[in-house]
Amino acid sequence: MKSDIEIAQEATLKPIHKIAEELNLSDEDYEPYGHTKAKLSDRLLAKLADKPNGKVILVTAISPTPAGEGKSTVTVGLGQALNKIGKKTVIALREPSLGPVMGIKGGAAGGGYSQVLPMEDINLHFTGDLHAITSANNALAAMIDNHIHQGNELNIDPRRIEFKRVMDMNDRALRQIVVGLGGPLRGVPREDGFNITVASEIMAILCLSNDLQDLKNRISNIVIGYTYEEEPVYARDLKVEGALTLLLKDAIKPNLVQTIENTPAIIHGGPFANIAHGCNSIIATKTAAKLGEYVVTEAGFGADLGAEKFLDIKTRAGNIETDAVVIVATVRALKMHGGVPKDELTVENIDALKAGMENLQKHIETIQYFGLPFVIAINQFPTDTTNEVEYIKAWCEESNYEVALTNVWAQGGEGGIELAEKVVQTIESKEKQFKHVYELEDALDTKIIKIAKTVYGADGVEFSSKAKKQLAFFEKQGWGNLPVCMAKTQYSLSDNPALLGRPTGFTITIREFRPSIGAGFIVALTGDIMTMPGLPKKPAALKMDVTEDGKIVGLF
Amino acid sequence: MKSDIEIAQEATLKPIHKIAEELNLSDEDYEPYGHTKAKLSDRLLAKLADKPNGKVILVTAISPTPAGEGKSTVTVGLGQALNKIGKKTVIALREPSLGPVMGIKGGAAGGGYSQVLPMEDINLHFTGDLHAITSANNALAAMIDNHIHQGNELNIDPRRIEFKRVMDMNDRALRQIVVGLGGPLRGVPREDGFNITVASEIMAILCLSNDLQDLKNRISNIVIGYTYEEEPVYARDLKVEGALTLLLKDAIKPNLVQTIENTPAIIHGGPFANIAHGCNSIIATKTAAKLGEYVVTEAGFGADLGAEKFLDIKTRAGNIETDAVVIVATVRALKMHGGVPKDELTVENIDALKAGMENLQKHIETIQYFGLPFVIAINQFPTDTTNEVEYIKAWCEESNYEVALTNVWAQGGEGGIELAEKVVQTIESKEKQFKHVYELEDALDTKIIKIAKTVYGADGVEFSSKAKKQLAFFEKQGWGNLPVCMAKTQYSLSDNPALLGRPTGFTITIREFRPSIGAGFIVALTGDIMTMPGLPKKPAALKMDVTEDGKIVGLF
Repeated sequence: MKSDIEIAQEATLKPIHKIAEELNLSDEDYEPYGHTKAKLSDRLLAKLADKPNGKVILVTAISPTPAGEGKSTVTVGLGQALNKIGKKTVIALREPSLGPVMGIKGGAAGGGYSQVLPMEDINLHFTGDLHAITSANNALAAMIDNHIHQGNELNIDPRRIEFKRVMDMNDRALRQIVVGLGGPLRGVPREDGFNITVASEIMAILCLSNDLQDLKNRISNIVIGYTYEEEPVYARDLKVEGALTLLLKDAIKPNLVQTIENTPAIIHGGPFANIAHGCNSIIATKTAAKLGEYVVTEAGFGADLGAEKFLDIKTRAGNIETDAVVIVATVRALKMHGGVPKDELTVENIDALKAGMENLQKHIETIQYFGLPFVIAINQFPTDTTNEVEYIKAWCEESNYEVALTNVWAQGGEGGIELAEKVVQTIESKEKQFKHVYELEDALDTKIIKIAKTVYGADGVEFSSKAKKQLAFFEKQGWGNLPVCMAKTQYSLSDNPALLGRPTGFTITIREFRPSIGAGFIVALTGDIMTMPGLPKKPAALKMDVTEDGKIVGLF
Repeated sequence: MKSDIEIAQEATLKPIHKIAEELNLSDEDYEPYGHTKAKLSDRLLAKLADKPNGKVILVTAISPTPAGEGKSTVTVGLGQALNKIGKKTVIALREPSLGPVMGIKGGAAGGGYSQVLPMEDINLHFTGDLHAITSANNALAAMIDNHIHQGNELNIDPRRIEFKRVMDMNDRALRQIVVGLGGPLRGVPREDGFNITVASEIMAILCLSNDLQDLKNRISNIVIGYTYEEEPVYARDLKVEGALTLLLKDAIKPNLVQTIENTPAIIHGGPFANIAHGCNSIIATKTAAKLGEYVVTEAGFGADLGAEKFLDIKTRAGNIETDAVVIVATVRALKMHGGVPKDELTVENIDALKAGMENLQKHIETIQYFGLPFVIAINQFPTDTTNEVEYIKAWCEESNYEVALTNVWAQGGEGGIELAEKVVQTIESKEKQFKHVYELEDALDTKIIKIAKTVYGADGVEFSSKAKKQLAFFEKQGWGNLPVCMAKTQYSLSDNPALLGRPTGFTITIREFRPSIGAGFIVALTGDIMTMPGLPKKPAALKMDVTEDGKIVGLF
């Protein structure tokens, strides 16, 4: 079997100006970055304001397992399939982070015959967006320590600085560090740590901004830490929002590329899916909706996290209408939810599959709660048996759920035509009655309780004493009307990663909160969330190389 | 008077494909990065191998002073002037570092009507080269700590790791840090520190590589630290040279832009001028020599540092022939060398000027030692008096030195025509008999003594006991045949920054060495060299902004 990079290197890409022309873009609407990448103007959205929006399809999934669901691959494959059946479609995806690429094999650009290209560039530096975010983040961090070093006029408590430096690298040794050592010429010693770039609040801000001025306003509102009197200190107090916006002036422009079948794809932004909302940028999705009759986009993790945040945070901030949801599942992953260990997934097991369907059922109920029409996509693997597939079909039929088999990794768009047709039909025939899980006016704890009960199926929520204190403080600061961004394990509907399937009779524990006032949400942490990954014993980087004739090897 | 950015924003740039066409480049020879930047193919040099080289003109200067000499501005102005007199000229320059741009006003893209454009992009992220170097550097650093964390098979002594992480930011608090704190899940605690990206050995490597495979070989040879037995550990021992080369596959491609008068400029690489060699990349200079009849390029600091390293390190590694040298001086700077404080420079002072000429005289002798023809460029300021200018002219005439007045900041190429004509005349009429200051076969201490006596005018060199021990160790490792990269104050010909003019009767003290085996030189440190700058009390960033209509303000 060919690897993703081998398939990618055999593909014939159109010059990016051809893709742009097919989208009716003029020269001023985009800037080429090499022959197969471009940045779209950040003014394009305003220019197209009067154009009606295409239909927005969100691709989400069951709770992820180590078996893999292929959500990005289905997203790309569905986009290609829609084009094949004559619907002008644009895909909107997150851009990958370099650190994990160096660490563990696996990118975020789809796979097989449903991937976005040039995959090498997209998985490495791409058009530099993550580097710009790193620079902006670290400029602010340097300004904070410099402010303290130069006299600390704002009275910042060095023990209460919340804003960390970032690096787009899996670098365990930077998780917990002491900076400013070496005497008075080297600053003020304090405890600190690095996050990976995608965990930067600035990444979340970039993705939730509607334009450059919105971005600047949000940057102004970042809480960098607290004074000795425990009053919040904002980025605007340091007067750096202009410089940071300048550093992000190109990063805010969405990136245009194409899939292996030359379907246009806008790849832009990629915030963490736990301490942030895990969706590509608002600008990307809105631009795609102006350029295509259909937009296919995805959100991180399962529907309990990604879809909930897409619908309660992202579409709210961007005033985006969602028209349908695709819920991706695989036979393998459903069997894992039914209790089968990873090394026994190739054996047919209808009982386990039946038990595992409970996980899918809960995510379906969540999408139904949101009032959105949906189609279930069963992403096929060669080891799936006919009995297993037939079982799922019958299960769906019984509940009157739309379901489609997809084989987009191996067949590209052709393998997604059934799904595409059902999605179009669903959008055209089914009514949607969208509602949020919570209202912005709800108190913060009410919002969390609503999410936990409605989306996770929890009995209730416990708040630690620290969390309770923080809630009171946040309401006092006027942050109570912000949406909540849940940081919970993706592996379970509960906050215990070991509880697969559809756990019941559990409560969610909120350990603490982190205010992302710039991004515009309050992060609720249910456990330890790792914001700086480490490298494995044998990092993927060890296999990477460029041969003498310039060929890239070992990247996926 | 208009600011640099105001002048830049009024300029009319040609689309970059026009500039490329004028250089007879075809579509496959370059990739556009936006409408006014491009990356040249890293295969272009091989393709043009049979084409004869253009004449290479090195622009250097007297010892820098706070008065400013405008070496980059003269470089750009001379390139424009050569084009004006009908000589097809390409400029080769270093690319600026983002950190200092945020810190202290002042870029590296020339100024006034002799600047390279788009200056905003060039001074911010440009085409991402520095970000790629940061990534490659920090991937290696993460691999080192990960190796130790995962069992330390290579027996690396965490107290003897020489390879530091980097950030393209002026961040004082990262100068001296402790990493790996927080218990066994967070690595092995050790002392560490960040350098600014331009001080990365990988930056020096990129600039001294002739092609991608040369780059990979040099990366293999980076000494990252020592084992507990004090044996050197190389990057190749960690098997990461392939991944790092992959991360640098685009960064190695030189960047094509244009000056304000549409003269082509290749801007590529910018290593520190003290712990590295301070010149743009070999690939950039060699490509410029294939594309132009004339190449104008520059080297960092004064001729004692930049020109010496250009001629003893860079042109040696790249097999580049130098055809003429321009030595830039200003009346103001010469008066400072003659003892005038900065706030009295507007007052005519022939005596001080006369005393200051000694500094210029020493640099002239250095260029004469190298056997290269030269022209002195007096970069005029409005406060220069006729008497002062006439004094310099007479001084040059007396020694039969070619001299030209330039006014390129205010007049662009027009203000450099006298210089351009004299440079062409000098190249056409004067013989060159190039020789290096030292031979590679010389022992390391002999090389340093030769530089100190010939170039600095020192009586001799003292080596600290640490330096002596290192010398013996290096010769044993087989590193003795490498060139030497002097890390000395740029403000004085001596190693004491307070000794302006032409000091005599001094010795140079070598405190310690740092092996840059990947780059291919041994750094000799004469004092404390700061490799991570700090921000000032009021960073330049505070004035930067992007207005609602997208205009950039406060950047220079």
